[in-house]
Amino acid sequence: MTIAVSPLAPVRFPDMPEVGGVRVATAAAGIRYPGRDDVLLALFDPGTTVAGVFTRSKCPSAAVDWCRAHVKSGRASALVVNSGNANAFTGKSGRAATELTARLAAKAAGCRREDVYLASTGVIGEPLDASKFGGVMDRLVAEAQPGRWRDIARAIMTTDTFPKGAATVIRLGAAEVNICGIAKGAGMIAPDMATLLAFVFTDAPIAARVLQSLLVRGVVDSFNAVTIDGDTSTSDTLLAFATGAAAVRGAPTIRRVEDPRLAAFRKGFDAVLANLAEQIARDGEGARKLVEVIVEGAKSKRSARKIALSIANSPLVKTAIAGEDANWGRVVMAVGKAGEPADRDRLSIWFGGVRVAHNGERDPTYDEATISAVMKKPEISLRVALGLGRGSDRVLTCDLTKEYVAINGDYRS
Amino acid sequence: MTIAVSPLAPVRFPDMPEVGGVRVATAAAGIRYPGRDDVLLALFDPGTTVAGVFTRSKCPSAAVDWCRAHVKSGRASALVVNSGNANAFTGKSGRAATELTARLAAKAAGCRREDVYLASTGVIGEPLDASKFGGVMDRLVAEAQPGRWRDIARAIMTTDTFPKGAATVIRLGAAEVNICGIAKGAGMIAPDMATLLAFVFTDAPIAARVLQSLLVRGVVDSFNAVTIDGDTSTSDTLLAFATGAAAVRGAPTIRRVEDPRLAAFRKGFDAVLANLAEQIARDGEGARKLVEVIVEGAKSKRSARKIALSIANSPLVKTAIAGEDANWGRVVMAVGKAGEPADRDRLSIWFGGVRVAHNGERDPTYDEATISAVMKKPEISLRVALGLGRGSDRVLTCDLTKEYVAINGDYRS
Repeated sequence: MTIAVSPLAPVRFPDMPEVGGVRVATAAAGIRYPGRDDVLLALFDPGTTVAGVFTRSKCPSAAVDWCRAHVKSGRASALVVNSGNANAFTGKSGRAATELTARLAAKAAGCRREDVYLASTGVIGEPLDASKFGGVMDRLVAEAQPGRWRDIARAIMTTDTFPKGAATVIRLGAAEVNICGIAKGAGMIAPDMATLLAFVFTDAPIAARVLQSLLVRGVVDSFNAVTIDGDTSTSDTLLAFATGAAAVRGAPTIRRVEDPRLAAFRKGFDAVLANLAEQIARDGEGARKLVEVIVEGAKSKRSARKIALSIANSPLVKTAIAGEDANWGRVVMAVGKAGEPADRDRLSIWFGGVRVAHNGERDPTYDEATISAVMKKPEISLRVALGLGRGSDRVLTCDLTKEYVAINGDYRS
Repeated sequence: MTIAVSPLAPVRFPDMPEVGGVRVATAAAGIRYPGRDDVLLALFDPGTTVAGVFTRSKCPSAAVDWCRAHVKSGRASALVVNSGNANAFTGKSGRAATELTARLAAKAAGCRREDVYLASTGVIGEPLDASKFGGVMDRLVAEAQPGRWRDIARAIMTTDTFPKGAATVIRLGAAEVNICGIAKGAGMIAPDMATLLAFVFTDAPIAARVLQSLLVRGVVDSFNAVTIDGDTSTSDTLLAFATGAAAVRGAPTIRRVEDPRLAAFRKGFDAVLANLAEQIARDGEGARKLVEVIVEGAKSKRSARKIALSIANSPLVKTAIAGEDANWGRVVMAVGKAGEPADRDRLSIWFGGVRVAHNGERDPTYDEATISAVMKKPEISLRVALGLGRGSDRVLTCDLTKEYVAINGDYRS
C-alpha cells in the first residue's frame, strides 16, 4: 500500500546543526525494505554519556532488554538502529541477534561491546538475521560523518510518512550547545510497524545521571503525553547522548540535577522532546486531524492526565473528530469512564475555543455553523473544564479514520 | 445510513414463553425515529421484586440516577424504556424529565411513582420531551399483554441491526419457572447511540436481595466480559424483575442466597445473561467477526481478565482480525501493555485451535495456509497461555472494521 505524506506533516525537515562528537552513517543492509537504507550507525567520541527510557510493556523486545542492561553504566560509544525487523518475540535467537549486532559494531568501531546501544523496528516475531549487518558495518564506520540528520531520520522510518527531526541551540555557561533529535512514528507494532523510537544528541557536557533525570522528567509531557491508539509497542525506546564536545568552547560540565545552569538547558531539551512528540501525533496512522486535549479543573495533574488520555484514546471521540462532528456527548462519556472525580453538571467543553457545553448542558449559545467551521480545520483543540480543582494537563492525539483500519487491517484476499 | 443486519446475527429471534405477572406494550411516541415504536411499557403484578446494575461512568444519565435511587426498595410496578433520546447530560431538565415520565406512568398504571423504573437510549445532550409519553401512556397500559418479546426488543433498538432476546425454563421446587431477557447493543453513546440496556423477567419468587446478588455475580462473566470498543456508556442499565407468579404453581420463594434450590435457577439466569451478552458482541458496530479471547495460565482470574480485555480492546488486534491476519505479534503487544505478570518467553498463542506461537517464538509448525483458513471464519477463538499460574478468563468482542469508523464518523459534507 502506498501511503501519502500526512496532511499534518511539517512543511519541510528542519535545518539542524551538527553536534560535536557525533558522527552518523546509513546503509542498506537488506533486512526487509528493498532499495532503501535500513540501518543507522552513530559513533560517539570518548566520554559520551547516555540515558534511556523504554516501553512499559511486560514483553519488551530483545533490543530493549539489551539497552536496559547497559544504560546503567552511563557510557556510550555507538548506536545501531535498524528498520524492517523489530527483533521482538524472537526468543533466544533474539538475544543472540542483539549480541551479534553489538559485537559487529564494537569490532568495526573499536569500542566495547557493552557501550553499543541497539534499537530495532519493523516486523515482530520474525528472526532478525543480524549477520547482514556484518556486510555493511566497516563501511558505516568509514563513512560516518557529522550532520546528515535527515538521512538517519529516514533510515529508521517504517509506516512513517515523513522523517522527523527537531533541534535547538541553548546557551550553557559561556558556550552555545546544540540539541538535536530524531524520531520515528508510533501507533502500531507489527508488519510495517510503528514503534516509537527517538534519539537525542547534544554536545553539552552532562553527567549520565543528570541526563537520565532530564529524560525521565522530560518524557512526562512529551512522548508520554502522545497517544495514537492506546497500544504500546514492545520496543519503544528513547535514548539521549551527551558528548561533552562543547566543553572545549567553555561549556561547564553539569554533574548535579540541582545545578542552576541546567534550567535553560532543560528548557531546550524539553522543547526538542515536545517537538518530536508532536510530529509523532502528526504522523499517526491515517491521521487527518491533529487533536490537542486539554483538561482543566481536575483534582490533580495525575487525574487530569487520566481523563485526557481517556478522551484521547476513545474510539468514539476520535471517529467523531474524523467526521468533523463536535460530539461533546462522547467527550462526556470519555470523562465518565476515566474513573476519576468528575461532576456531570459542572462540566464545560470547548472545541477550538468555542464553548459547546456548559454546566452539564448544551451551551445556550451553541451554533452549528460556528462549530462546523472549527471542526473542518486540520488542528482541533478540545478543552474540558471539570470545575473541581486546579489540576490540568494536555495530551496530543489524532483522529481515527478508515485509513487507520486500512493500514492496520492489511486485508487479505 | 442504512445498516444491513450483522452477518453474525442469530438466524431468528428465539421462541420465548410468557412470564406470568409481566405485561408489555409498545408505542410510537415520536421521540426521534419516524414510523417506528420507540417506547416500551412493562407492568408488573404486585409483589414483584427488582434488582439492578448500572454503568460505572462517573457521569451517568438522569435515568440511571433515578433507578439507582429507587432500586434499593426492591419493589417494582412498571418499567418505561424509550429509544431515540438518552436523556443524558441534560442537567436539571433531565431530572425533571425522569420525574415527569415516572409520574405519567404511575398515574396511568395506578402505582407509586417510585416503583416505576426508567431507561433511555439515543441522542445525548438533547433535552428529552417527556410530555410526549403522556399521549401514549393510557393506551400502553390498556394494551399491555404477556409475551410480545420481539416487539419490545425492537422498540428499544438504536443502531442495533437485530432484536435480542433469550429465554430458558428452569425447575424451581415443584414448578417450572421461566426466565426471559431482552437487550440492546453496545459500542457507542451518541447520535444513534448504542448504550447497553438489558432487562430480565422471571416468574420465580425471588427476594430482591437474592435477585441483586444473582445479578452482581451474573454480570461478571456475561455483560462485563463483552467489549466492543472499550467505551463506556453513561446509561448502561441491567434490571431484573421477579414477579413470583410461579408461586401458585408450587415454586418456593427464595429468600436467602445460600438456599440450595437457587443453584439451578442461577445456572439458567446466568445462561440468559450470557446469551444476551454474546448477541451484543455479535452486533458490535461494523462487526464482521465474533472474537472470543481466552487467557489461561495467568496469576489469577483478575489478572487473566485484565489481559483478555487488553487484547479485546486493542485496535491493532481488532484491525488485524478484520483483515483476517493471525497477527500474534499484536497479541503479544496487548499482553505486554496490560501491566500484568507475563513472561514473553513462555507465551503460547492459538487462533481457532491452531497454535501460532510457542515459548515466545513463532511455532515451528506454523503454516500460513492452515491459519489463513481459520481466519476466514466468522467466529474466531483467540487463546493465550501465559504459563505462570492457574488463573483463566474469557471475554467476547468483535473486529474493528472500516464500517465501525463509518457508523461512528458520521461524515459531514
